[in-house]
Amino acid sequence: MGMHIRSGDGPAYTQELAAFLAGFRYEDLLAAVVQAARRGILDWLGCAFAAHRHPTLDKLLMALADNGSSNGASVLARHIRLSHTDAALVNGQMGHLLDYDDTHMAGVILHASSPVLAALFSAAEMRQVTGRDFIAAYVAGFEAGVRIGQAAPDHHPGGWHLTGTLGTFAAAAAVGKLLGLDAQKMTHALGIAGTQAAGMQQNRGTMCKSFHAGRAASNGLLAALLAEKGFDSSEEIVEGKRGFARIYSKQQALERLTQGLGDEWLIATNGHKPYACGVVLHPAIDAMIALRAQVGDGLDEVERVEIHVNPAVVTITGTVAPTTGLHSKFSIYHSAAVAMIDGAAGIAQYSDERAADPRVAALRDKITISVDESLRRDQARGRVVVKGGKVFETKVEHATGTADNPMSDDAIEKKFLANADGAVDAAKAADIVASAWRFDALEDVRDFIVKVN
Amino acid sequence: MGMHIRSGDGPAYTQELAAFLAGFRYEDLLAAVVQAARRGILDWLGCAFAAHRHPTLDKLLMALADNGSSNGASVLARHIRLSHTDAALVNGQMGHLLDYDDTHMAGVILHASSPVLAALFSAAEMRQVTGRDFIAAYVAGFEAGVRIGQAAPDHHPGGWHLTGTLGTFAAAAAVGKLLGLDAQKMTHALGIAGTQAAGMQQNRGTMCKSFHAGRAASNGLLAALLAEKGFDSSEEIVEGKRGFARIYSKQQALERLTQGLGDEWLIATNGHKPYACGVVLHPAIDAMIALRAQVGDGLDEVERVEIHVNPAVVTITGTVAPTTGLHSKFSIYHSAAVAMIDGAAGIAQYSDERAADPRVAALRDKITISVDESLRRDQARGRVVVKGGKVFETKVEHATGTADNPMSDDAIEKKFLANADGAVDAAKAADIVASAWRFDALEDVRDFIVKVN
Repeated sequence: MGMHIRSGDGPAYTQELAAFLAGFRYEDLLAAVVQAARRGILDWLGCAFAAHRHPTLDKLLMALADNGSSNGASVLARHIRLSHTDAALVNGQMGHLLDYDDTHMAGVILHASSPVLAALFSAAEMRQVTGRDFIAAYVAGFEAGVRIGQAAPDHHPGGWHLTGTLGTFAAAAAVGKLLGLDAQKMTHALGIAGTQAAGMQQNRGTMCKSFHAGRAASNGLLAALLAEKGFDSSEEIVEGKRGFARIYSKQQALERLTQGLGDEWLIATNGHKPYACGVVLHPAIDAMIALRAQVGDGLDEVERVEIHVNPAVVTITGTVAPTTGLHSKFSIYHSAAVAMIDGAAGIAQYSDERAADPRVAALRDKITISVDESLRRDQARGRVVVKGGKVFETKVEHATGTADNPMSDDAIEKKFLANADGAVDAAKAADIVASAWRFDALEDVRDFIVKVN
Repeated sequence: MGMHIRSGDGPAYTQELAAFLAGFRYEDLLAAVVQAARRGILDWLGCAFAAHRHPTLDKLLMALADNGSSNGASVLARHIRLSHTDAALVNGQMGHLLDYDDTHMAGVILHASSPVLAALFSAAEMRQVTGRDFIAAYVAGFEAGVRIGQAAPDHHPGGWHLTGTLGTFAAAAAVGKLLGLDAQKMTHALGIAGTQAAGMQQNRGTMCKSFHAGRAASNGLLAALLAEKGFDSSEEIVEGKRGFARIYSKQQALERLTQGLGDEWLIATNGHKPYACGVVLHPAIDAMIALRAQVGDGLDEVERVEIHVNPAVVTITGTVAPTTGLHSKFSIYHSAAVAMIDGAAGIAQYSDERAADPRVAALRDKITISVDESLRRDQARGRVVVKGGKVFETKVEHATGTADNPMSDDAIEKKFLANADGAVDAAKAADIVASAWRFDALEDVRDFIVKVN
């Protein structure tokens, strides 16, 4: 086209990032990186399974029912096939629907797996790909999404939903890696992805929020498929004068695009949610589960619960007496009470029934929340007084699921099994678990996909 | 969802606009508005036909070939069916590919028909719709797209490609109108559209530029289909604190969303391109065609051509001796020469062959371009001196195709027939013309669609 003149005179950041993404090999990955990928696959699938019958998803599927796209990839757990891009759209929204999916918090808050894995699973139904290639592609998605986000640091305060915007880049990079694009085509995949990047925080609290993840999956998948066929784009989509870091963000930190490539792998610092609510509640829930173990059989003897938390907890989740399941996700009182009664805060703990449960309400009334400015967002302190005056105390230094205190593999597996209940039978769920831990041994990822449909 | 609280305390602009879009009837439209729609349909189809074998489009179709979407709507003139959303994607890019499609220039520069008509034709293959309903829907698309653009006045300087961003709203509003959405659902269609709005100027000069129009068509179509099924969104997607006018633009002019609704119809001020090049060249081409008529048979006697133009012409299109067809679109010298020789500046005048044509080169060398600050962008003056010293002069006050000097219906028809050559045979082209001028008489728009495939 003769117009591919670079507008900047600085480093060719996007091209360098693309060259790295295109060039690294599965064999370059540390064991911990590969394990992070296996954990990510299992956890994300569970989150999608848990949402597979959600009414929002039914609306999306109704809208697509007459679209004439029925010969492509599988919608998870629904026994429906749509076009590859439409299946990526649905699965991406499904994975993010309950806001229970993994969260990367290194400077940007990104639910990378919903766009990336939804796109990858759709692409993997197009042709034979190995588990190793799939894992390398998944890793590439994190590198692109998180780094491009870090290069545009004002992007979240500017009003964008990062899982929509960055997710599009991440999905394109991942599928581009899966397709084996060279550096030039990978650059174009990022350029075609960026020009579709969207998702506004204005839509928080609506069905659009999780839709952003699906849109990102679908658009990123298409971007990579187009680049493969020679469709071109700007070669400086991030750093260009009218590039992503300029028009989606007031500030730029372009060096983050290439800094430490190959030394740090961003998927390794991915976070997994142990509880089906906002991360701000997690330290207090951790505290309650620890105290529950200390209290043992004396749960009915509890007279008083005191919890000290970071101020944000009360601001965001100060609801005292929630009346619905959705409402209860915004209640520190409900969350602490169910954590103490059940030793869990999964999807079952945030149902309409549990919000109205008299036993939960009774314990809720015994809870006092105090703000402590000295506590970080991943910290909490808890104190329980039981009949007779005996006192139990605990302090949470790093909430479970953060990079400093990751969920154990066992906990990831248990979370999956709870989430999968209702989507697949127990034998199938166990088979998926076993297969996910050996994902890199798959000769053809379609052998895995048949299990999850 | 319990979270649909309006963040602003000003007028509910988006809801008011949506209520108007949902509420007006075909019977409310002035004859000139309906005629503008008929002209728009015919002109847009021609522009799409002219691009239907473009290599960029082949790449897009190759990427979609394995997508598993084959039972929906028609790709224009290609005898291919894809899913409705994918067909809208392809047809939207096809319509905008040559940058020959209609251009609305009232404050925003928007190629509205490519996203809107591509989406509408796809939707019209889903169920029976009348020509009248289709025209009302087309009109709704212009109202939404242009008004939302005017409400975000810094949006183009900010780096966005408006046909991508505004086109998404426009396509959603149009399909929403076609589906008969009520005010509430129309509000959601706009909200779902806005959260997908994208397209960066960084991609000018690449295949992504026209792709933006297709993406807008496809995403807008899906937004309306989702809203129909009860999928929700923010109800203040434009004016909200994190809404479109805030995060895509530094300034807001929200009153433009509702000002004069029903009194002015924005499709009536749509512009059509008589020439297959940037609008900046059009006044000079007009001048040359007028002088050609004056010179008559004496074209070979021309000794000297002097053209006075607005300074922007030389800045943007100052190429003296272009070597390719694409390059010749950026040459005022080439454009003036072919206009004088052929009396036209259509697609045929911008081929590689004509760029290299010795007769064109010879006339080019006789042309002098002078900048005149007093000339507006839609003005030009021309002067021809022939052998023996006879002089012909002309001044163009408003270039053809602008709102102040629209192309005649006859000119629109001739442009269509030239564009359709190679896509459909002459009899079919004539049939399409006749049918487009009676578009509102169609009982089922599918009777028209069969003609254009």
